[in-house]
Amino acid sequence: MQPNFEKPEWVPPNAGMEYATIIRPGVELVPADHVAAAQQTPQRRNLSIQEYLQGIRQGDRTILGRAISLVESNSLRHLESAQELLTLILPFTGHSFRIGISGAPGAGKSTFIESLGCYLTQLGHKVAVLAVDPSSSISKGSVLGDKTRMEKLVQEPNCFIRPSPSGGALGGVARKTRETVLLCEAAGYEIILIETVGVGQSEIQVRSMVDFFLLLNIPGAGDELQGIKKGIMEIADAVVINKADGDNIPKAKLAQAEYTQALQYIQPATMGWKSSVHLCSSLLNQGISEIWQEILKFQSLVQQNGFFEKRRKEQLREWIHQLIQEYLYNLFYQNSEILQAIPGIEQDVFENRISPTNAARKLIQLLQK
Amino acid sequence: MQPNFEKPEWVPPNAGMEYATIIRPGVELVPADHVAAAQQTPQRRNLSIQEYLQGIRQGDRTILGRAISLVESNSLRHLESAQELLTLILPFTGHSFRIGISGAPGAGKSTFIESLGCYLTQLGHKVAVLAVDPSSSISKGSVLGDKTRMEKLVQEPNCFIRPSPSGGALGGVARKTRETVLLCEAAGYEIILIETVGVGQSEIQVRSMVDFFLLLNIPGAGDELQGIKKGIMEIADAVVINKADGDNIPKAKLAQAEYTQALQYIQPATMGWKSSVHLCSSLLNQGISEIWQEILKFQSLVQQNGFFEKRRKEQLREWIHQLIQEYLYNLFYQNSEILQAIPGIEQDVFENRISPTNAARKLIQLLQK
Repeated sequence: MQPNFEKPEWVPPNAGMEYATIIRPGVELVPADHVAAAQQTPQRRNLSIQEYLQGIRQGDRTILGRAISLVESNSLRHLESAQELLTLILPFTGHSFRIGISGAPGAGKSTFIESLGCYLTQLGHKVAVLAVDPSSSISKGSVLGDKTRMEKLVQEPNCFIRPSPSGGALGGVARKTRETVLLCEAAGYEIILIETVGVGQSEIQVRSMVDFFLLLNIPGAGDELQGIKKGIMEIADAVVINKADGDNIPKAKLAQAEYTQALQYIQPATMGWKSSVHLCSSLLNQGISEIWQEILKFQSLVQQNGFFEKRRKEQLREWIHQLIQEYLYNLFYQNSEILQAIPGIEQDVFENRISPTNAARKLIQLLQK
Repeated sequence: MQPNFEKPEWVPPNAGMEYATIIRPGVELVPADHVAAAQQTPQRRNLSIQEYLQGIRQGDRTILGRAISLVESNSLRHLESAQELLTLILPFTGHSFRIGISGAPGAGKSTFIESLGCYLTQLGHKVAVLAVDPSSSISKGSVLGDKTRMEKLVQEPNCFIRPSPSGGALGGVARKTRETVLLCEAAGYEIILIETVGVGQSEIQVRSMVDFFLLLNIPGAGDELQGIKKGIMEIADAVVINKADGDNIPKAKLAQAEYTQALQYIQPATMGWKSSVHLCSSLLNQGISEIWQEILKFQSLVQQNGFFEKRRKEQLREWIHQLIQEYLYNLFYQNSEILQAIPGIEQDVFENRISPTNAARKLIQLLQK
């Protein structure tokens, strides 16, 4: 069945399928007149690169949103403009503190980010929230859901919230998010919170683009969950036990003790830093300022011992080589002559006429022609 | 400290560092005169491709061993001969049943394989045992250890035992093992047992080159281990609880019940097949024939429903595309002009003069010149 594709608000209404962002029908029913209204949205004028740049530098959130869409576009037509824009904003990037926040579904990431985000904007900081979550970002239900759950934060003028959709391409999620971080930095956001759901490879990707990585847990998540979490704990600069309120407090303290002990046997994620376990209640706004103090202590340490700079360089290097992998892949698999030759050569291998190694070499030779 | 490299017996004595196989000193002390004797081994004559082919087809285990070494060599000089040989043997390959056997260290893989291998050779089968284990295959101690532990099997004239060393290169382990399987098949081995240690990615690699995947466990391995094992259970066609003898029997039966229950919630590794849990004692040779009956039942099912053929094709396709990835990687990272340009372009990125995307494109352009 052909899904009924829709476009999110930040995509130009006349755009085609080249946008990475596609909204699939969520769980909630959308009234038909709402859909009709969305389809009738008046067409927006294309912006010039200079208009994008000025808008971003002036902190215009609508233009920032459109610039992110431009960068997220998979269209070749947009690629050049996006690169031009990214090159222009480079001098204004790199000055934020980037924080990754991960946790299993149900750990209360959205409420935690809302509490932390509101706390930081009240301190006068400009905060951007990016969600790297392939499963939620392509589902209208949960994208809207996230926004609804962060209803206080979304009203803050110093806050920008943006889900970062999966690009479908190899490494797509990571690439778009990194560039989105740069755009937010150029727009003056000093603290970038990158949310990801703690179920697989996405945390490793997010760890490779943040300065501080925070793992959110809930009390009494059971032994099995902890087993799965061990790999993630190895990349965490802090573990936060959320929902430590009311009847949960004894369980939360027990979990704190257990995680603290577990961390003793794990090599710290950041050289010279001892990851520790904190309690918090996003609901009651308790523990948030203590966690922020911990993050500031971390920031001061890594900036003094040079690890901040070192990690940023390593992350940039990793980014470049990931892009190279992706380009090499595209160079090969978007070559029409190769695409035509693949089925026949595969068949030769299936029928023992040629070895897999020679098959691969034959295809590679087509690229080198 | 420079390690004291040695060559295993199947590498020509005058060979250089191009051989993937390097023996590092193991835990046991080797008498100095033994080393001296090894160094004085008389030089063996190089074989022609025809001599390799004839030797393999006649089931000469020494020549088979040398042919595997030829295939494992990373030297460009050997690559062409190896490919020529592999192309010549292709018509004689594909007719074995390939079985992957995995388990955590201590699960008793070697004794299990010895029991199963001896049982199969007594039934008149020719059996090849390949060990894909990067950690043990580069350590003299454990390679010798494996041979010693399989001392009955190693004496069987219908059995060939060979550790498959890590190639160091991207996907090295997998590639060499696949080609080794083909060589063993051409030498008439009807059953190939591929052993791998159950600690990481190696099981996934081995699953992608076998018809049947068996997971070995021991009773009472604890909850934490089971958590880690979940991913591996998803690729297992059978789980075997080893060491189910004496006092272990109650614990083994409990583990059997637990694994059986766990398997209910997991999608079967092979379409149409229900993975089940078996008890065995390699020590007492109990349960081995039942496991073999189970494997035969599986073989009969997948050959009838076409899944055997389908999986073999998918595995070949995966192999080709893994090789392509590897070739693309080498094409780029072995290009001297690119290697020279990388540090400067990375520096440009560090200093915000160029975006990572443009950096990657610039480097890719050097390849396309």
